Amino acid sequence: MDSRFDELLRRLGAIDDLVRAGTLLGWDEETKMPVAGADARAEQRATVEAVTHEHRVDPALGELLEELRPFEDAHDRDSFEASVIRVARRDYRKAVRVPPELRAELERAGSLGYRAWLRARADNDFATMLPHFERNLRLRREYVSCFAPEGDPYDVVLDDYEPGTTTAEVQAIFERLKERLVPMIRSVAEAEPIDDSCLSGSFAREAQHRVSLAILEAWGVQEDAWRLDYTVHPFEVSMGLHDIRLTTRFDEDNIHGILSCLHEFGHGLYERQIDPSFARTPLADGVSSAIHESQSRMWENLVGRRTSTWRHFYPLLQRELPAFADVALTDFVRALNKVAPTLRRVDADEVTYCLHVILRFEIERDLLAGRLAVRDLPDAFDAKMREYLGLQPPDLANGVLQDVHWSDMSLGYFPTYALGNVVSVQLWERAEADLGDLDEHFGRGEFAPLAEWLREHIHRFGRTHEPRELLFRTVGSGMDPEPYLDYLQRELEELFGTSVA
Amino acid sequence: MDSRFDELLRRLGAIDDLVRAGTLLGWDEETKMPVAGADARAEQRATVEAVTHEHRVDPALGELLEELRPFEDAHDRDSFEASVIRVARRDYRKAVRVPPELRAELERAGSLGYRAWLRARADNDFATMLPHFERNLRLRREYVSCFAPEGDPYDVVLDDYEPGTTTAEVQAIFERLKERLVPMIRSVAEAEPIDDSCLSGSFAREAQHRVSLAILEAWGVQEDAWRLDYTVHPFEVSMGLHDIRLTTRFDEDNIHGILSCLHEFGHGLYERQIDPSFARTPLADGVSSAIHESQSRMWENLVGRRTSTWRHFYPLLQRELPAFADVALTDFVRALNKVAPTLRRVDADEVTYCLHVILRFEIERDLLAGRLAVRDLPDAFDAKMREYLGLQPPDLANGVLQDVHWSDMSLGYFPTYALGNVVSVQLWERAEADLGDLDEHFGRGEFAPLAEWLREHIHRFGRTHEPRELLFRTVGSGMDPEPYLDYLQRELEELFGTSVA
Repeated sequence: MDSRFDELLRRLGAIDDLVRAGTLLGWDEETKMPVAGADARAEQRATVEAVTHEHRVDPALGELLEELRPFEDAHDRDSFEASVIRVARRDYRKAVRVPPELRAELERAGSLGYRAWLRARADNDFATMLPHFERNLRLRREYVSCFAPEGDPYDVVLDDYEPGTTTAEVQAIFERLKERLVPMIRSVAEAEPIDDSCLSGSFAREAQHRVSLAILEAWGVQEDAWRLDYTVHPFEVSMGLHDIRLTTRFDEDNIHGILSCLHEFGHGLYERQIDPSFARTPLADGVSSAIHESQSRMWENLVGRRTSTWRHFYPLLQRELPAFADVALTDFVRALNKVAPTLRRVDADEVTYCLHVILRFEIERDLLAGRLAVRDLPDAFDAKMREYLGLQPPDLANGVLQDVHWSDMSLGYFPTYALGNVVSVQLWERAEADLGDLDEHFGRGEFAPLAEWLREHIHRFGRTHEPRELLFRTVGSGMDPEPYLDYLQRELEELFGTSVA
Repeated sequence: MDSRFDELLRRLGAIDDLVRAGTLLGWDEETKMPVAGADARAEQRATVEAVTHEHRVDPALGELLEELRPFEDAHDRDSFEASVIRVARRDYRKAVRVPPELRAELERAGSLGYRAWLRARADNDFATMLPHFERNLRLRREYVSCFAPEGDPYDVVLDDYEPGTTTAEVQAIFERLKERLVPMIRSVAEAEPIDDSCLSGSFAREAQHRVSLAILEAWGVQEDAWRLDYTVHPFEVSMGLHDIRLTTRFDEDNIHGILSCLHEFGHGLYERQIDPSFARTPLADGVSSAIHESQSRMWENLVGRRTSTWRHFYPLLQRELPAFADVALTDFVRALNKVAPTLRRVDADEVTYCLHVILRFEIERDLLAGRLAVRDLPDAFDAKMREYLGLQPPDLANGVLQDVHWSDMSLGYFPTYALGNVVSVQLWERAEADLGDLDEHFGRGEFAPLAEWLREHIHRFGRTHEPRELLFRTVGSGMDPEPYLDYLQRELEELFGTSVA
């Protein structure tokens, strides 16, 4: 039976290799490829994706997984062997549910939708996007029906990003978030605005790069296993557990690029600290989008916008970027933590961010259930923007067409952004309970204890435990919005005094 | 039948995509990958290679190629359709000759041989390399026997790099080269040495990079379809006909890195100028190693070491690299063209280079035929070095273990280097006959006419015509060493006067 398990590892290793080959084609396209290479690259990516999929749904893999049931049962549930078989079987069963024709059609229509979205956004023209939305939504419904869901059909798309979490659970969390966030934001809108003018100016890209690298190195990035490259839309990928690639974009007129490095670092550290013996198995990945996002949000927001962190790094920033020479540390950190309703999700602060997500989640559910027609999407979007954030989008690029996610009707991803925020504070509080006052660590430039705590409690497991179980083992509960809401309340008190909080 | 041809193109396109995905894994490994990513990368490359091979030997591809015989016959031999089918059938037939087990064993033993070679070279220890040489040679003989050669077994390995060229033809060319080169080199060794001390010194890497880019841009490199990156051992790859990647290495103490850019440009221009409609077919590649090498040698040596070329670029070089401020153009070009016997092939000049290759070709033939035992390899190598170049290697790293090619007993490649030299001058003379005095063009900074001539007569055809046919169409003969020898003779006269020539 051991030789059958070896055969399984061989097959899963090949799938992992193919996935990473596809990852490299994508990373290279975004960071290195000469622009004229785009057409050839699209073909290369499609072929590698198709070949990978053939390996994923190979009936021989399914038979092997069945043969290995006694082997799995003979091993402890948490063991490497049982976990690999369990997770691989889950992946296989999901993969074979979707006919290859539908998968190809989703791919093709999604790609057309993406190109139409670029044009529609630039031309402020919803009409040209409408048929793409309609086709992609129809295909997404077909996809959902492959899984013959008994409960909420949205559970199916959610499961692709957040395995085991139900729409009902998410809705309950989001209702509670709304209940407290909407009034918070109303009072913020009425309060004296935070002055963040120091964050605009002229900031040499080279200097921003040096500052980012210095912070990343202090946080554990080493040249032998990490890279940092430039791209248009920052992201993180790993070519293996020892080859972690962050990307960012430095603009001359703001320092978003530095914060985006800190965000992507959180994703990278997760993959870097997965148990190295999981390499080339399905365990060697983050367990869900929300848990992944909790890591990037933690390092960007909870660590990266914190006074104690900047007490350590601010002298460096002032040396490298003379525009900050006369800005006090407290003013700088206050500016970093500015709260104010904005039109664009990606520019949103910690407090308003979740509402951008919640309104999208609600719209996605209505679209999938047929309660909302695609032609009514712009009105529905704007109405929720007014209700939750008090803002009316002036055009589609700052409204319903601002995100790429709907260009192919990729539903189910948005909610994990807000869940990531929620989880990040749950983990943070547990880490502080274990490690003592983290501000003391950070002020001394010690970030390793937090990184090690995350390795021990989250990262090393990869996909061994489902998100719910992982969270329960670590914080003793499921996803809980209260710590996050209390954290925001404290933030607002610090920024505005009791007038707002 | 048209739909069957479309099916063929689809299959061949997928193979091309997979080949390029493997290419990117290799390019990235040599230029970008964090060092700790090496183990994972080896697995990824092996998997993509294995999957590519499965596609290459798919029996359905073989059947399709047979079905398409009438379709092929209905098309002109030079047509796209007939050429694709003909070349694809040739590739398929070669691929299926070798059992997958042997292929895997060659791969595995080759990789072990490579690692042993690195150690043996560092330790000056032939004994540890001996069993690897023996195993790899045995496997190479097995490989040859898969093709049941009726003539010289060396024909089989030669055909992998130089399709349609026989060992006997190569031998005849090499005999003639030896006949004239050995005495040339003897008299060079006795003459007053050329002073090339100006090529050693301190040369800022950044400045070398700028000079290289300026030359490459004048030669036709455009940012939208080319890249230049750093690596340890320079090479060129293409990710498609619009995504050409050169690599080089700039050292502070010499300007080899600039010349290596010019060499790799020759390879890159070839692939850049293949007929774009050949994309994702087996026609979209250089037709043979010798023809490819003729392009790199032409741009490196015939163009890149030429007075007229440097008349145009030398002011730039002097501005960027102040060490040349007081070096006269003639002294600089004379230094670039220095002729003197050296121990290492890769450092050899235009005159001595071919003898390094010829001695390897002779040794390879003797090894494959069993006339030379592996244990006698060092002695055989040294004896030929003394005979042809008048030099005795002081150690293995400067002798028989200097090249990577034998670490896995990859026989048949070396001769194409010398054949590339031979062909480069044949093409050059034809181009000059068509275009008039190229020095006049170059002195004015006009390199496009030569590039366009090469496109028209060589590049655009890709693999449509076999090397022999391509050469015959262009220069009216097969490979002919006389133009190359006459060119060298003139070179020597210019450098040393009639005393040597």
